[in-house]
Amino acid sequence: MIEIRQDGNFTYVFSKYIDPICKVPQDEEILIHTQDFAEGKINSVDSVPSDFMKGYLNPQTGPIYIEGAEPGDTLAVEIIDIQPDRDWAVSCNIKEFGGLVATNATHLLNKPLEEKVWIYRLQEDGTFKCDTNPKMHYPWEPFMGTIATAPEYEALSALTPFNQGGNMDCHDTCPGNTLYLPVAVEGAMFYTGDCHAKQGDGELIGTALEIAGKLTVKFHVIKNKKINWPRIENKDYIMVVGSARPMEDAARIAYTELVHWMVDEYGWDELDAYDALGQVGEMYVGNMCDTNYSLVAKVQKKYL
Amino acid sequence: MIEIRQDGNFTYVFSKYIDPICKVPQDEEILIHTQDFAEGKINSVDSVPSDFMKGYLNPQTGPIYIEGAEPGDTLAVEIIDIQPDRDWAVSCNIKEFGGLVATNATHLLNKPLEEKVWIYRLQEDGTFKCDTNPKMHYPWEPFMGTIATAPEYEALSALTPFNQGGNMDCHDTCPGNTLYLPVAVEGAMFYTGDCHAKQGDGELIGTALEIAGKLTVKFHVIKNKKINWPRIENKDYIMVVGSARPMEDAARIAYTELVHWMVDEYGWDELDAYDALGQVGEMYVGNMCDTNYSLVAKVQKKYL
Amino acid sequence: MIEIRQDGNFTYVFSKYIDPICKVPQDEEILIHTQDFAEGKINSVDSVPSDFMKGYLNPQTGPIYIEGAEPGDTLAVEIIDIQPDRDWAVSCNIKEFGGLVATNATHLLNKPLEEKVWIYRLQEDGTFKCDTNPKMHYPWEPFMGTIATAPEYEALSALTPFNQGGNMDCHDTCPGNTLYLPVAVEGAMFYTGDCHAKQGDGELIGTALEIAGKLTVKFHVIKNKKINWPRIENKDYIMVVGSARPMEDAARIAYTELVHWMVDEYGWDELDAYDALGQVGEMYVGNMCDTNYSLVAKVQKKYL
Amino acid sequence: MIEIRQDGNFTYVFSKYIDPICKVPQDEEILIHTQDFAEGKINSVDSVPSDFMKGYLNPQTGPIYIEGAEPGDTLAVEIIDIQPDRDWAVSCNIKEFGGLVATNATHLLNKPLEEKVWIYRLQEDGTFKCDTNPKMHYPWEPFMGTIATAPEYEALSALTPFNQGGNMDCHDTCPGNTLYLPVAVEGAMFYTGDCHAKQGDGELIGTALEIAGKLTVKFHVIKNKKINWPRIENKDYIMVVGSARPMEDAARIAYTELVHWMVDEYGWDELDAYDALGQVGEMYVGNMCDTNYSLVAKVQKKYL
Repeated sequence: MIEIRQDGNFTYVFSKYIDPICKVPQDEEILIHTQDFAEGKINSVDSVPSDFMKGYLNPQTGPIYIEGAEPGDTLAVEIIDIQPDRDWAVSCNIKEFGGLVATNATHLLNKPLEEKVWIYRLQEDGTFKCDTNPKMHYPWEPFMGTIATAPEYEALSALTPFNQGGNMDCHDTCPGNTLYLPVAVEGAMFYTGDCHAKQGDGELIGTALEIAGKLTVKFHVIKNKKINWPRIENKDYIMVVGSARPMEDAARIAYTELVHWMVDEYGWDELDAYDALGQVGEMYVGNMCDTNYSLVAKVQKKYL
Repeated sequence: MIEIRQDGNFTYVFSKYIDPICKVPQDEEILIHTQDFAEGKINSVDSVPSDFMKGYLNPQTGPIYIEGAEPGDTLAVEIIDIQPDRDWAVSCNIKEFGGLVATNATHLLNKPLEEKVWIYRLQEDGTFKCDTNPKMHYPWEPFMGTIATAPEYEALSALTPFNQGGNMDCHDTCPGNTLYLPVAVEGAMFYTGDCHAKQGDGELIGTALEIAGKLTVKFHVIKNKKINWPRIENKDYIMVVGSARPMEDAARIAYTELVHWMVDEYGWDELDAYDALGQVGEMYVGNMCDTNYSLVAKVQKKYL
Repeated sequence: MIEIRQDGNFTYVFSKYIDPICKVPQDEEILIHTQDFAEGKINSVDSVPSDFMKGYLNPQTGPIYIEGAEPGDTLAVEIIDIQPDRDWAVSCNIKEFGGLVATNATHLLNKPLEEKVWIYRLQEDGTFKCDTNPKMHYPWEPFMGTIATAPEYEALSALTPFNQGGNMDCHDTCPGNTLYLPVAVEGAMFYTGDCHAKQGDGELIGTALEIAGKLTVKFHVIKNKKINWPRIENKDYIMVVGSARPMEDAARIAYTELVHWMVDEYGWDELDAYDALGQVGEMYVGNMCDTNYSLVAKVQKKYL
Repeated sequence: MIEIRQDGNFTYVFSKYIDPICKVPQDEEILIHTQDFAEGKINSVDSVPSDFMKGYLNPQTGPIYIEGAEPGDTLAVEIIDIQPDRDWAVSCNIKEFGGLVATNATHLLNKPLEEKVWIYRLQEDGTFKCDTNPKMHYPWEPFMGTIATAPEYEALSALTPFNQGGNMDCHDTCPGNTLYLPVAVEGAMFYTGDCHAKQGDGELIGTALEIAGKLTVKFHVIKNKKINWPRIENKDYIMVVGSARPMEDAARIAYTELVHWMVDEYGWDELDAYDALGQVGEMYVGNMCDTNYSLVAKVQKKYL
């Protein structure tokens, strides 16, 4: 197994302007170590989160060059496993960041909430329990908050979800699922980070149970297949992630692309697909705190 | 059991300006017959949906006066059962209406999609199967698209979801759940209609499997308890429905009120509740086609 | 001249369910007295604005029945003059209301700003000067914040701007301009109130220089002409007011209807009209604080 | 006078990852040649606009390194003059792009409008007249649609307006005005392009009267002054440009930063500034077609 570790020199953009840290073949198991959103520096209830917002946030492992990937292809990321890389996780309330407060995007005159840090400890049964409130005790249900390929010519902040993935914070980028991403540059230039031990729909407070995590994946390149937005598939579902503001635009993207998927690959008539999703489509909020909101539209394969 | 039927003289607003069709006691089983969103007139693939958009839409059974309900109380609607009142359901694509098209709210220069009607027949096993596409074959998972109490002084279209319920089109107004609504006028003035045999998240195409339905409920009045937005509860979950535009405002309302619920009735610290929902809150899209969008925030009781 | 005064028994909805206070002929000068948004009760820097938010707000004079107006017609409201009906105006910051704060629509966990009242005195030269800050000294540029005809079957809060006018808070409902409103019920059922001595674009703080005002108008009914949204005209401009959330939907409504106006009445090709407005259309924010945002699209007649 | 010309090798991102094309001193007149948004290739009514959307769009002249500019400073761009660099301008309707159509952000199932190109010829009196519709005849009122400094670590598409300027498409980046931009990298790394002979509020159809233009500016660096969003000033007004989606977030940014400006530099109390802008603030829509919407909040200096 190939093991990739990037201590110290992390990346904070999805960008083709950075040299790849390694080249990897398709179809092999690859173990990728990742740091948490604050490089582990918010590690106590006495940490001051906004101190870290001044620097760079959401360090990424990458870019990883996938052999054979070229613009116009699709990269399939088969997510095999995620394991914790340490025995604690952290969430926090960061000044002017989060789903229920005024932010630098929804910019208001209200004063910010106070900041607060919660430390969660890994228990023997694999769950995570908060130091300061025992009711906050949650299962290990890990996923990668951030997975992306590099844009064609932009270099986007690692805080941004976009049409090639990024900081989607949707819990379906988890073991057992395969994520499909557009390839815009040679080698795809893959990035990942922001492992979450557990997160609710919306990443409401702006942080999940943030943890350093070890991701095991296989990469597969689907040649000459162009997709417009991230797709996810498992044995039961097909899904599309739309990221935009306002939130209804994220919802429209996700469902419109799901209609296109049904039409292009499952032979549906467009209006029939539209009606079918009206009856059996599912949609949850991935994140409502990032620079774009991410919504996931999904449908069970048994209905296709 | 009290049985309420309102053939012919339906109501198309949530309003205190209409005389109640009956007065009912609390704590008794009540069977309410309802018509579908188009009074059964869209009943063939040859029907032209937009012909019916010119008249009144979404006929409501009501208002029903609940004895003992006064402004400042909360009405608990215990949803016991929903049965079909006919053997077919209908969905349709209506011109300039729906989640993936330009509408009179998102008003653009694009030309409308063509209209189309799908008729679904009740099968012996209780499922509904489309006449024209056998893959469109769905289970009976009924709920009331529209449930409301009358506003304090407005009379709102039965197409509108708002802070006293209305056309929320969220699938959790279903048997087994209890819906809590603010009471703004004497007798609460309860309305319901728009039964859905099955609907996906978002009511994407603007119509569900629309059917005449028979609803069995019990009403309970919680005296001197004021809530701001509709709440739903069952043995596993507490939930809040937020309705607004843009969609993020619906999401903010739902989650903010869920925080308040946890603080006021479960003794949580506000910031802890905010963080907990970040980790284990759930949020789905009820409707993305109505005059306001409705989103449902929920959390499992085991985490409270 | 007909003079209409409605002391005491004001209306807080746009509704056909209320008996008209009078019937008036077309084409005659009518003087209408109006109260301010808080019936003059916020009259000192010591007033507490949120005390008044608990009761009814934005009292309307009306409904006024216009002879000859029937559903499907358009009501032309020729605004001839507005005069102050007292020698002071008031603006205030109301808790959880306004364009730069969390509100009950953009519902957040941030704590509200403190409330504050500003009293402006009418000066000899006709300007208004603030008691507590002499730099806040503004000209008399009056308009009616609220003008509406009654909806077909809803009764809408007087705080709401909608497709028949209402609480648009656009400064072009002023002397010299003619406002066109759809007629949905017999007699049109006209309402007005919320006179503003002066207001900036957006009514940013949620209140303008609020004053009791005397409005002089003439009504004219244009038979069998159906418009979809409020239109305004003067010797130099045609304008459309769109009201919706999110704000881009208000903008889309206003400009789309302006395209339709150019096509239907000025003989423009649709794409040419679209391009022309791209080059010479104007758009300002009427209000960004009410239940819907109102934006005004306009174009100079010389370009038509 | 320093003259800068960049034939051929244009830039399509605002980025620090590109070597500067030149270094220029402060306080000197600099003449910058720019190409139009399509490098002059859409030059006939027979051109097919979407053919050019497949390639790179909105070529920028830059980056220009301004001597003495360092992160944490503010760059003042004194706009002295803009002259046409050719005798025709072009606007067009591009498939799935523009303010009144479904786009890749507001992603719907509606079919696109047909594409169309309008060619405007420079007349002897300096006006521009459309070849195909003589009513479309407009004055020369030029401004630069796109002006930016490079972000700290992102490389953003030249189609994007953001907190360091970019594709704002606001007509106040015109001769006589001074634009202030944050400096995030050494040398500021200045870009400009997208000259508009004339544009209405909103750039409704997605293109203005697009033209190659010659811009004369002086750069001044204000040391150790940090601003958050672009500011504009002339003898009569101070203004802030906010860029975001939904549109109300752009409006909130612009007005909130204008409040801060009044507080920080004109000595206003925050609530008084908020109220003053409620009465005399002005706000127009810069663009409603780009990746973010741009709104301009402004206030006359005489009120400060």
